[in-house]
Amino acid sequence: MTPRILIINPNSSAEMTRAIHDSAVAFAGDTMEVVTVPTPGASPFIATYEDHAQAAPGMVRLLTENRDRYDAFVIACHGDPNMDLMKEITDKPVVGIGEASMKLATMLGHSFSVIAPVERTVPNKKALIDKYGITRDLASVRPASVEAGGSDVERLIAAGKRAVEEDMAEVLVLGCAGFAGLDKKMEEVLHVPVLDGVICALIVASGLARYGVSISKKRRYDNTFGKRGK
Amino acid sequence: MTPRILIINPNSSAEMTRAIHDSAVAFAGDTMEVVTVPTPGASPFIATYEDHAQAAPGMVRLLTENRDRYDAFVIACHGDPNMDLMKEITDKPVVGIGEASMKLATMLGHSFSVIAPVERTVPNKKALIDKYGITRDLASVRPASVEAGGSDVERLIAAGKRAVEEDMAEVLVLGCAGFAGLDKKMEEVLHVPVLDGVICALIVASGLARYGVSISKKRRYDNTFGKRGK
Amino acid sequence: MTPRILIINPNSSAEMTRAIHDSAVAFAGDTMEVVTVPTPGASPFIATYEDHAQAAPGMVRLLTENRDRYDAFVIACHGDPNMDLMKEITDKPVVGIGEASMKLATMLGHSFSVIAPVERTVPNKKALIDKYGITRDLASVRPASVEAGGSDVERLIAAGKRAVEEDMAEVLVLGCAGFAGLDKKMEEVLHVPVLDGVICALIVASGLARYGVSISKKRRYDNTFGKRGK
Amino acid sequence: MTPRILIINPNSSAEMTRAIHDSAVAFAGDTMEVVTVPTPGASPFIATYEDHAQAAPGMVRLLTENRDRYDAFVIACHGDPNMDLMKEITDKPVVGIGEASMKLATMLGHSFSVIAPVERTVPNKKALIDKYGITRDLASVRPASVEAGGSDVERLIAAGKRAVEEDMAEVLVLGCAGFAGLDKKMEEVLHVPVLDGVICALIVASGLARYGVSISKKRRYDNTFGKRGK
Amino acid sequence: MTPRILIINPNSSAEMTRAIHDSAVAFAGDTMEVVTVPTPGASPFIATYEDHAQAAPGMVRLLTENRDRYDAFVIACHGDPNMDLMKEITDKPVVGIGEASMKLATMLGHSFSVIAPVERTVPNKKALIDKYGITRDLASVRPASVEAGGSDVERLIAAGKRAVEEDMAEVLVLGCAGFAGLDKKMEEVLHVPVLDGVICALIVASGLARYGVSISKKRRYDNTFGKRGK
Amino acid sequence: MTPRILIINPNSSAEMTRAIHDSAVAFAGDTMEVVTVPTPGASPFIATYEDHAQAAPGMVRLLTENRDRYDAFVIACHGDPNMDLMKEITDKPVVGIGEASMKLATMLGHSFSVIAPVERTVPNKKALIDKYGITRDLASVRPASVEAGGSDVERLIAAGKRAVEEDMAEVLVLGCAGFAGLDKKMEEVLHVPVLDGVICALIVASGLARYGVSISKKRRYDNTFGKRGK
Repeated sequence: MTPRILIINPNSSAEMTRAIHDSAVAFAGDTMEVVTVPTPGASPFIATYEDHAQAAPGMVRLLTENRDRYDAFVIACHGDPNMDLMKEITDKPVVGIGEASMKLATMLGHSFSVIAPVERTVPNKKALIDKYGITRDLASVRPASVEAGGSDVERLIAAGKRAVEEDMAEVLVLGCAGFAGLDKKMEEVLHVPVLDGVICALIVASGLARYGVSISKKRRYDNTFGKRGK
Repeated sequence: MTPRILIINPNSSAEMTRAIHDSAVAFAGDTMEVVTVPTPGASPFIATYEDHAQAAPGMVRLLTENRDRYDAFVIACHGDPNMDLMKEITDKPVVGIGEASMKLATMLGHSFSVIAPVERTVPNKKALIDKYGITRDLASVRPASVEAGGSDVERLIAAGKRAVEEDMAEVLVLGCAGFAGLDKKMEEVLHVPVLDGVICALIVASGLARYGVSISKKRRYDNTFGKRGK
Repeated sequence: MTPRILIINPNSSAEMTRAIHDSAVAFAGDTMEVVTVPTPGASPFIATYEDHAQAAPGMVRLLTENRDRYDAFVIACHGDPNMDLMKEITDKPVVGIGEASMKLATMLGHSFSVIAPVERTVPNKKALIDKYGITRDLASVRPASVEAGGSDVERLIAAGKRAVEEDMAEVLVLGCAGFAGLDKKMEEVLHVPVLDGVICALIVASGLARYGVSISKKRRYDNTFGKRGK
Repeated sequence: MTPRILIINPNSSAEMTRAIHDSAVAFAGDTMEVVTVPTPGASPFIATYEDHAQAAPGMVRLLTENRDRYDAFVIACHGDPNMDLMKEITDKPVVGIGEASMKLATMLGHSFSVIAPVERTVPNKKALIDKYGITRDLASVRPASVEAGGSDVERLIAAGKRAVEEDMAEVLVLGCAGFAGLDKKMEEVLHVPVLDGVICALIVASGLARYGVSISKKRRYDNTFGKRGK
Repeated sequence: MTPRILIINPNSSAEMTRAIHDSAVAFAGDTMEVVTVPTPGASPFIATYEDHAQAAPGMVRLLTENRDRYDAFVIACHGDPNMDLMKEITDKPVVGIGEASMKLATMLGHSFSVIAPVERTVPNKKALIDKYGITRDLASVRPASVEAGGSDVERLIAAGKRAVEEDMAEVLVLGCAGFAGLDKKMEEVLHVPVLDGVICALIVASGLARYGVSISKKRRYDNTFGKRGK
Repeated sequence: MTPRILIINPNSSAEMTRAIHDSAVAFAGDTMEVVTVPTPGASPFIATYEDHAQAAPGMVRLLTENRDRYDAFVIACHGDPNMDLMKEITDKPVVGIGEASMKLATMLGHSFSVIAPVERTVPNKKALIDKYGITRDLASVRPASVEAGGSDVERLIAAGKRAVEEDMAEVLVLGCAGFAGLDKKMEEVLHVPVLDGVICALIVASGLARYGVSISKKRRYDNTFGKRGK
């Protein structure tokens, strides 16, 4: 069985969708089929809770309409927008790139740092990490935007270096799906594992699909509640 | 100054809206003006994350359209649906009845229990309590539906009694806005404080409005991000 | 019903009592009656555990003698001295300004900082915050005394600025009842909510009084234990 | 050096003082000198926060007056009343029997249970355990009073048995100084370590005295604050 | 690239090694090459810390000697014996089945229970879960041995049923590598995801190998420390 | 009864063994008999998990062979290597110097810092502190190696000063058995309690031996499991 996986990019950016897809395909090889789609009606970049809410109807539609065509779903925004909703409405595995990358990070070293795009969302990411119960394993959330550097990757490396040296991070997690493809460039310089969320989510999603395991429908994510009599 | 407060009932039930309003008005007296509205487009009862998402657009509209007419807002569903979104988009105080009632409960005794309508949402409520960081103060979440009794209040009292005696709760919190008006009936029998969420939220919301304090717009709930240049 | 509230200043300073009272009255307007008293036999400033113990007999007397004259009590020292004792001996709501202000702060932003008068009590405040189970929401405790500035408010603003910028606080809490009246001056400069403890406690205490809810007398704060037979 | 240790029984019961002293002397042998005193002005049994406050002046006096005569102090009530105060005012080691016994218990097995005298103080003990940050290691607090049995020791054994079998405790802690001398009787029946608080505190206090280490006077328990200029 | 994975069974049982291998091969298909070996010198069943220590030299040897022949390693005992050591000495990904299965479980529902073989190791498993920082997500550890039933799978189902109904678990984790192959039988009856540790570890290990990511060698698991000069 | 205590130095260094012994004997006086031995087959310095594993067989042998000759055992490496194993295999009290010193530190001030020899093991120490559940009480782990200074004690004092001033530690713990004898030198300069692990462990071990209390053999450290039938 070769799992078919739909990667839902919760924003509407064609460019970011393509970058995510290229990176995903390169990893997938012939072990899984991967399709990546942007979310209709979503904003071009997801940062605020308003962006999350705006993306929800499109994400629901994508998940629902593709229910039978795919074996698993990946939500490709590091803020894991609408994940409780996604877990609830589906009967197939659905994996957020934030959750997958940060939980895998906890298996690879003493503590991890997330490299965020901007300072504005640092507390939002901390709230997400707290939601997943892994704050103990967090060294820091470091925004790349405040670092000096002529290019994105230079600023990411500067933030990563600070995380490793000052915050004692042993693993780094890319805090935005748009950073796809920069992981290995950072690893070469920083000499610690650098995790791309989409690839981590593909590992988990394809594995669960092959294993035949999905989100528990007992209580919290039960989607038959109040509908059984209808 | 007499604060004007809009109570947004995130579901579309006219009956529950009326019950909430009656209870709110009785508490408000002449210390605040209270208006209660159901949410257009929402489901008649909020239990699932899908219900939360379905309510979001209507809630946003209500909050936005009434921005200038009210001094504070109360979100009247104990699951605090879309609260991060509500806190982000407004410049006025907005208070969820779950957060207000459970945080006030921690000031009144060693530990509190939430009396939930049904077992299905017990883990959802636990996740919410964990989000607020007050799990330490939680004695239990007890669903009323599994208790014996001919009426709602009998089942609530039975669940409350179990919480107080078996789980050692010292304070009870009504886990649904629809339980409005049953608090004092339970107190008479159970001899511990029983908190109605709407009244607790009115206490906090009217107080913040009179104090002139609102949700911080620094970082996590900043709603100008990405819009300043527009 | 207009709640009558007694504000007990646990120290014996007439000057601080007056400052607290002025600020309280300005907030109260005609929504509550407020009386503020210093504590006989207490030291003029509360910092140490010895100061707490010294204040206890006077605080007990004030609470007991005024039992029938007031609907609720506020303990107006940010260290919340003898609060467990206060909660136990009364049958009316009693609210500490530390607990009220810091728990309200958690509803208004991602994390809060307390601006303390001096470095000596920073760990004492941290221990108190830990007692309330809200350390997760704490950005920092910042002592104003170590900051440069010609006046109290300048040092408070400097400490607050550091908390917001360096510790990523989104809400500030005044860590001393003696800072009454400086909240709005700080807000103007710092653009985040700044909470005065006395006002926060008045919000909660008056609300509880109007709601008819008090400290649970079940177990932890039961004051009939060992006395029922007498 | 043979440490001289003053055991302060925070209540005024001569009988309990004698029981504590007998047990302490039996343990002390010739390795330390032990004197045990009741607290003048205290109630005969410590259960409530009011009892704590009532004991404070006498405890302060005992500690202060005997400052030079003893090398270390033990506070012999399992609720550790006024311990922050005791730690602050002294320059010699002072050890609470609750803290000593429960922290030693964490070194001897996976989790411990406290056998409390009565149900009323179960949450008070839980609050104390939380204050010490060792809730993770707690299996349960079990009140002996609710167990069947003709004698104290039978009820203690019944509560201990329940803790070991139902709550999976691996170590038991006697939750009252008045249980002195019952530890070994319980061990014989229950086959897990049973810790008497006074003996545990003597171990720690005599050790600290011989080591020449005391409570840190840096910040939290600094007793020179505000007095240096006097 | 087809990852070659060595599954190290930390005990010496040929029978259990075969059961693990059969289950692993069935999952692996042609997506990875799997070899399973018992540990020379280890005890036939791993339960105690002594068993862990006894297995260490053999496990080190297996990992070291096969360093170049495999792309990743799985340690196939649910107690994750000697995992810190394994993570330190290797430069390839090494995954414990306890860590992998329990961390994946947290992605699939509100809380999980571990079905342990015997009561003796329940606290040991709890200590492990605490080590991984996921105690918040734990519903319970339920020993199968205390359940009624004629066969292993019947007792596992009985324990699982109790976990789901009484402890509100939404996901189950098999607490022993020897339970290989029973996951799907349990799922059919219990209608919640049931995770086999070896398969979960293969998902993670093969994914990491394909991704080219391994244990961080920065600080905690640095194996060059003190050897660089040699 | 004069307790006979065997101090097991988990490394093989004769020099460090002698330093530990001298310091232990000076503290012991005539209150206990102390013998100190290095571990045959162990590495000369314990830093890595490999060092822990290498020391295990020798430590087991020392503990087993001396079972009847001693009343209690101290494991004299601050990383507490193989402590779960030690606690399991013995019927006598066994105390790790890391656990004893850090848990005693929590009784002496608001928070403690550990002065570590090198940066490499900082996360390892943090993981140990987390294992003991006392991370809340930790101010920092400060490596001495990164400080300037001509001698060990100068670097230790510099690191300690930083811990007290920058991290607000109120108590210091020496993070290596090899620092024996430097505690009082540091105290003189730093004016906070400085705890040597071996002495702290001797306090606890001798006390437990005299009290007749040992590691619980119920469940987690039961060493008869699987052997009763043999």
